[in-house]
This record gives sequence, C-alpha cells and structure tokens, in this order.
Amino acid sequence: MNDVDTVAASAAMAAPEWAAVPPIARARSLRAAADALEAHRSELVGLAAEETALGLPRLESELTRTIVQLRLFSEVVAAGDELDVCIDDADPEFVLGPRPDLRRYRVPLGPVLNFAASNFPFAFSVAGGDTASALAAGCPVIVKAHSGHPRLSVRTTEVVSTALIESGAPAGTLAMVSSQDAGIALIRDPRIRAASFTGSTGVGRMLADLAAAREAPIPFYGELGSLNPVFVTATAIAEHGDKIAQGLATAVAGSAGQLCTKPGFVFLPTGHGLVPLLSHALETAHEHRLLTTSVSKGFVDGRRRAFEDTAVDAVVPGTVRMDEDQYAWTTPAIATIAAADLARRPSLVDEVFGPFAFLVEYEETDDLLGIADRIFQGNLTVTVHAGKDEDVRPLLDWAAAHSGRVIFGGWPTGVSVTPAQQHGGPWPATTLGTGTSVGTAAITRFQRSVAYQDVPDSMLPEPLRDSNPWRVPQRHSPAGQSGAWGMNPSE
Amino acid sequence: MNDVDTVAASAAMAAPEWAAVPPIARARSLRAAADALEAHRSELVGLAAEETALGLPRLESELTRTIVQLRLFSEVVAAGDELDVCIDDADPEFVLGPRPDLRRYRVPLGPVLNFAASNFPFAFSVAGGDTASALAAGCPVIVKAHSGHPRLSVRTTEVVSTALIESGAPAGTLAMVSSQDAGIALIRDPRIRAASFTGSTGVGRMLADLAAAREAPIPFYGELGSLNPVFVTATAIAEHGDKIAQGLATAVAGSAGQLCTKPGFVFLPTGHGLVPLLSHALETAHEHRLLTTSVSKGFVDGRRRAFEDTAVDAVVPGTVRMDEDQYAWTTPAIATIAAADLARRPSLVDEVFGPFAFLVEYEETDDLLGIADRIFQGNLTVTVHAGKDEDVRPLLDWAAAHSGRVIFGGWPTGVSVTPAQQHGGPWPATTLGTGTSVGTAAITRFQRSVAYQDVPDSMLPEPLRDSNPWRVPQRHSPAGQSGAWGMNPSE
Repeated sequence: MNDVDTVAASAAMAAPEWAAVPPIARARSLRAAADALEAHRSELVGLAAEETALGLPRLESELTRTIVQLRLFSEVVAAGDELDVCIDDADPEFVLGPRPDLRRYRVPLGPVLNFAASNFPFAFSVAGGDTASALAAGCPVIVKAHSGHPRLSVRTTEVVSTALIESGAPAGTLAMVSSQDAGIALIRDPRIRAASFTGSTGVGRMLADLAAAREAPIPFYGELGSLNPVFVTATAIAEHGDKIAQGLATAVAGSAGQLCTKPGFVFLPTGHGLVPLLSHALETAHEHRLLTTSVSKGFVDGRRRAFEDTAVDAVVPGTVRMDEDQYAWTTPAIATIAAADLARRPSLVDEVFGPFAFLVEYEETDDLLGIADRIFQGNLTVTVHAGKDEDVRPLLDWAAAHSGRVIFGGWPTGVSVTPAQQHGGPWPATTLGTGTSVGTAAITRFQRSVAYQDVPDSMLPEPLRDSNPWRVPQRHSPAGQSGAWGMNPSE
Repeated sequence: MNDVDTVAASAAMAAPEWAAVPPIARARSLRAAADALEAHRSELVGLAAEETALGLPRLESELTRTIVQLRLFSEVVAAGDELDVCIDDADPEFVLGPRPDLRRYRVPLGPVLNFAASNFPFAFSVAGGDTASALAAGCPVIVKAHSGHPRLSVRTTEVVSTALIESGAPAGTLAMVSSQDAGIALIRDPRIRAASFTGSTGVGRMLADLAAAREAPIPFYGELGSLNPVFVTATAIAEHGDKIAQGLATAVAGSAGQLCTKPGFVFLPTGHGLVPLLSHALETAHEHRLLTTSVSKGFVDGRRRAFEDTAVDAVVPGTVRMDEDQYAWTTPAIATIAAADLARRPSLVDEVFGPFAFLVEYEETDDLLGIADRIFQGNLTVTVHAGKDEDVRPLLDWAAAHSGRVIFGGWPTGVSVTPAQQHGGPWPATTLGTGTSVGTAAITRFQRSVAYQDVPDSMLPEPLRDSNPWRVPQRHSPAGQSGAWGMNPSE
C-alpha cells in the first residue's frame, strides 16, 4: 500500500508536467490507457466478476463503456474545445476606455482525489468518468479505491498507470490508495486541489464538509443519492400500460437495482392494473448477490422498513436472504403506497439501493405535483410517461426544476457518454447542484480560467498565441465592437 | 426595511417567472435597468459622493462602467450563448448502443443573495457585476447592501427594480436588505440557491462556511483578498524604471488604494533607485478619506504594523490622521523590505486595503520564485515587468499557477468587462478558485445544466427545439459520429 504523503507528493510533482503536455500527446496517453484496458479485458472482467457478482455480460459492456469513454475524452482533448480559448483583441476605442489585449483559457486545477463507487467497478471506479475527465483536464488523479473490488482496483491502477507512463505521462499521473483513513487524510491535504465522489448521501456529505472546512477549501463534486421519480399518466397506462410494466421491471431488476438512476418512486393512477404484469415480468428474475455487505444491510433494512409499514402493500415481495458473509441474496421487490400516505411518511422517502421500487398511487393528476413538492428534493433524473399528444408540460417543468435529466417515455437507467449528457442535479443528487459526472462536459469541473493581459505572443501559452500552434478553437472579440457579439450597445 | 421572510418569499415567487422570460425580453429588462441608472445619474453620483468620498470623476466613470456592463450582458442574453445549448441527435448505431435524443441547456439556479462591496458603490454593489450576471442568468437577486453607502443602495434598488418591473420583470426580481442579521438569515434560507460576495477574507470565509453548512449546501462565490504581487526585473528597471515608478504611484494612489487589484508587493532588484521617483510622484497626492471606519482601522493598523517592524524602511511615509468619526484621512505610503526578511515575517504578508505598498528588494532573479513560493497563496493577479525581448516565462508560469490574471508590463488595477476577463483565482482570491466575478463569463456561475431525453419537440423548452424559435446557438452531435468532434475513435 502506498504511503499517503508519498502519493500526494508524487501527484503534486506530476501536476505541472502533466498540465504542460500538449493536447495531442495527452490525447495519446488517454488512448493508450483505453488500449491497455482492452488488452487486459479478460483478466479485468474476470476479477470484477469474482469481486462484484455483477455478471459477465454487464461487466463486459461496462468495460467497453469505460474504454470508449477514455477514447471520446481523448478526442475532446485533441480538439482543444475544453480549453475554451477566448481572446479580446486590444481596442483603444473601447466604450469604457482603452481595452488591453486579453486572452483567457482553462488550466487544470491540480491533483484530484477521486472516491470510487461500488456499483460500477469500471465506469465509476479507477478508470471511470471522474478519473477520465480529470486526466483529460490535465490533472493527476489519486483514486481512493472502493473496498467492494480491491483486487480489480489494484490491477486497473497498474494497467492504466503503466500505459500512461509508457505513453509519456509523468510518474504520479495516476495512483491509488485503499483505506478510508488515507482518503480522509488526502481530502485534507493541501496538495489536493479538487475531489470527486460517487456514493451515499451520508458519506458524501461528510467528505463535502471536510473539503469545505480546509484552510483552503476545494471544489468537491459529489454525486450522492437519487430517488428518480417517475410520473405515469392515466392516458399512458391506457395506451401502453403493458410496455410500461415491462420497462419498469427491467429498470428495477437490471444490475440488481444497484444504479443511481434506478427509478425508486413510480407514480401511477389508482386502478393502473400494472401489478399482475410486474409480477409476471419479475417472477423469472434470478436471485442476485448484492455488491457489498454495506449495500446488503441498507437494502434489507430499507425493504423491511417499507414492508412493515401498515400503509404499504408488498405487491411483489421478492426474496431476500443473508449469507454467512453478510451479503444479501435477493430477487426484485415492489411495494405500493397511496401518494397521500407517502407524503405523511418522510422515513420512507429514502433511497433503497438495490432491486426495490415503490408504486405510488394517486387519485388526480392535478394533485400530483403538490404531493411531489412535499416529498422530493433534488434528483439526478425525473421521468414522465404520457399518452400520445398529451400535454404534460407542467410535469416536465417540475422535472427540470428538480433534476438534471428529464426523460420522456423511457427509463432513467442507461446514461449515454456524450456532449449533451447531464448526470447531476440539485442537492442531494449533486453536492452543489452544478456539474455533471458523465459526458464530456465533466472535464470542466477540474479546470479554472486564467487570463493573460498584454503578454507578448512568444511568451504566451501555445493555445493563446496568434499562430495557434496547437490549432485549438479560438473565439475572438474584435476591436471596434462592444464585445464578442457584434451588436451596438445602444440597440 | 424589508422583512427577510417577505423578501425571500418574493424572490422565490419571482424565480420561475423570471427564468421563463425569453432572452429578448430579459435583455430588454437589463437595458431598461441601464437606462434608468443613466436617467438618475446626477442623483446617484451625488449620493455616492456624499457617502463614499471617492470623488466625482471616479464615481462618474464607475457608474458608466456599471451601465455599460448591464448593456453588454443584455447583448449576451439576447444572443443566447450563455444557454450553451448542446444537442445529441438520436443514434441507433452509436458505439455504445442506441443513443437517445438528448438536449442540454443551462437554467438559472434560483434566487441569488449578493453581498455588496464597500469600494465600488456602483460596480460591485446593488447593480454591479454579481447582480448583473445573476439577473442575466435568469435568477432573482437579493442584495445585502453595504453599510458604507446605505442611501445610495436604497435609491439604486428603487431605480433598478422599478425599471425591471416596468419592463416586464416580475416583482421580486430585485430586492435589498440592509442588516448583517438579514444577510446571515438569508444565506441560511433554503429559498436562496447561490450567494456572491466581494470583501474581506474573514467575512467571506464566515459566509462560505455558512453556505457549506446548510442542509442543502449552495455555491458561494466569494472574491476575498489579494496581494497582487508584481515582479520587476533588473532589465526592466534599466530600460524604463521611470515609467514603472510612475505607473506604480498611480496604481497605489488611485481610488486611495481601495481596490482588490491594488499591487501590494512589488519585487524589485536591490539598487533599483525608484524611491526618489516614487516620492516625487506621490508628493502631490491629496489627502483622502477612506471608505468606512472599518477600512480606516484596517489601514491604520496595517500601516503601523509595517512601519514598526525593524526590517521595514518607510521610504514614503505618507500621512494618516483619524477624524472624530473614526474615518482615516491619508496620503499614499510606501515601505521597503528585503525579500528574505519578508519571507520570515508572515504577519506582514497581509492585505493592507488602502494606499500602501511594499517594495520587496531581492538580490538575484533566480531566488525570486523560491521566495514567492514561501510567501504567497492564490491571488487575483500577478504582474511581470521585463525588458524588451527578455525571456520571463518562468515568472509568467508562476503567475498563472498562483492567480487568475497575468499582466505583462502594466498594472493590475483596471479590469475590463469583456468575454476574456478572469477576475478570480486560487484561494483566498476566490473561495473555490474557480469562476470570475467580472466579464460575461460571470453569468454561468448562476446556472446549472438540464438535459431532456427523447422529449417531443412541442414540449421542449424553446432553446432546445428543432425550430429554434429564439434563434440561439445550438451545437449538434450528429448521429453516425463518435461524438461532437467528427473524429473516428480509432484514430
């Protein structure tokens, strides 16, 4: 195991070097990391299967996603868009008096501490989204490995850091620590300049508080918890209730429900009639071991709390048993509760991580948002199922006000790694309500801007030079205009 | 004075309405605010002159800057750039499996609490940069007025809020509170979704801690303190020492040094010979009343602490006297100290807000950065003066690593309101080291992103529709490509 001080010193040493690597070379290193993961696919997937019980098909596709993510990020880095270069040409006639030559771009924040998640041993772990985006931003990364897949974490770190170094990245660009004590020591370490986290609201809040309490506070990007409400209208049930039941069963059962985007509270009109369809769809579900003993305990407790409530009906009870190692083995469970009853039971409005969902039955569509307002804080996603041509704009507006992603007619599970993705939302979905941990926009979380005023061209960083040797996009605000927008301020 | 709960309720009520105002109409309201300030120019400047002692020429130009700023922001809003619309076209053949139609844009965070500064009664107060950028983002604003200009704050709020309402903005789009208790109650209020601050490190840290400790934490954009180091090489002195002395005198004396960008520590080679030039340039400086009793006390204490140190030489002692109301009246003062001595006196490495600067004398250019590393944390600016064709890239690299703006051959005072501006830097210049409080990029601090997945066009927000009724910039990631970048991932 690495000593915390050694790891932090090594990352701090690597930071200016990795920051100075030109985009093309940094992109090459990210591709090398992707290629190395591919070259070690069978070994890594095998380790993940042993440690997580997530199953080979899911793990294979998750590793593919992780590899493609690194390649996509390498393209973004090579194109230079994430540098956000912006140039004000000098303007002696500027409306507020002579304007200097001013050139701004984004630079990396410095060493990033990334707390890995249990539920995505590839995509939100050592080589996952937070690591890929911090590396793409030009930051060295120290991963606090998740105890749910320790051997996989060590091997992934070895494979990726070797690939990075062999492709020219400085030593210290990627490192790993294992213990909680090491994670806490590092988030307090002045050499760490930002932190990211995917996990529970409790642990996330504790870490966010540590980050805020430092002598020099740092940005803490925590993706904590989400209930992912789903609103289904009566028309949607009438038109395609069977399809909704099938989709819901898949979304709750997939990965044994251990997804931050699992739909947890599905609002349905009374008399929706989905229960027989759900029972049928779920009756063939295999028993599944949950990821960790901690996830197991949380699931068993949450399911019991729900089923023991007199207002709750265990319409699909599922099965659950603890093995001798305190892992839960379980099949999907569904409970129903009346919306008005749920609104009076804040203790039930909590994430049950695993294959469990509430069907929340409402009387009138008009009451839906009033009840939802009382129940929910921020979420990663809100989903709406409506009929053809049904106007559900109020539901969509509520969804946008309370989440980072609004899904229509589908399910929140499955998060594409693309430019338009937003994985993050108002507290407690994300610590500050801003930023995304999936998609290429995730890179900017690990950058800050620096402007250069009247610096001679030869001494400017390459992206800011007139000759633009790295061929990055440069946005100019020409002289003689009020700003970048080509409009007259008196218009 | 307004009741805190009433003000917060009114802002929360205005939030969805103001957020829904189309860009052209929101831009019109910002222009109306600018026009109203212009229409009340003589009254407002008169009030400011009575309350701040900053003098008419400075206040006239500051009001102009504030008006132009609102107009520039109205242009940005009208153009729609700050919405950052990004569209992934649906792609059944996407490399990771079928990709949904995904459309992301930025929405306002909600009511913003803005703590006004003392030293810019227009530009960093009721209608200043933080207010303009939050309004431009679509957020209602509650200003905690600064006690240094209370009547001006009330009148500015009346003038601007009337103009906003008459141009169609909802009531509650701009409000003001006065007391510290109100500010503290509001930063804890769940209806407030972000806060901004310009002022001292002590108060800023206290407010940042309150924002982080909330049940739902919020972003706190504090611009706290800055020492603004200046490095002058021996060659620069040899080539144009007289010009440097003149520029420094102006930068220290202007606005009685009460600027967050005043150069506080000017590193000069021993034997620089600037003292007679500085004495000459400053001997005609008028006595100036400082802004508040608190600024007065801080200045008197800081100057005394410097001058009483045995390692410090009061080369331009200036004058200072307290009047019966505990305001300091002062002329500019300059002290010298050897760099090695300063490095051993952390108590002197502190912002003295007002017309005071240290000349820090160094022996060898090679020692400069080692000493600076020991002395400085983050700053708003770092300035370098060098000779013609002299290579000072190591100084510029240090500057970029320790600040948000790097100035060459000029002075940090004077901050243009333009797209490329960056006013913010590593702690304690800015609370999180990220974000700018000057320039059009300031708007994005008050936004978060929301993505819409597979939502029918007719129910999408206007900026995301294919028909693009608001004609905002839309960036597409077409199907059939790996992403937005038109590159093959195997390249």
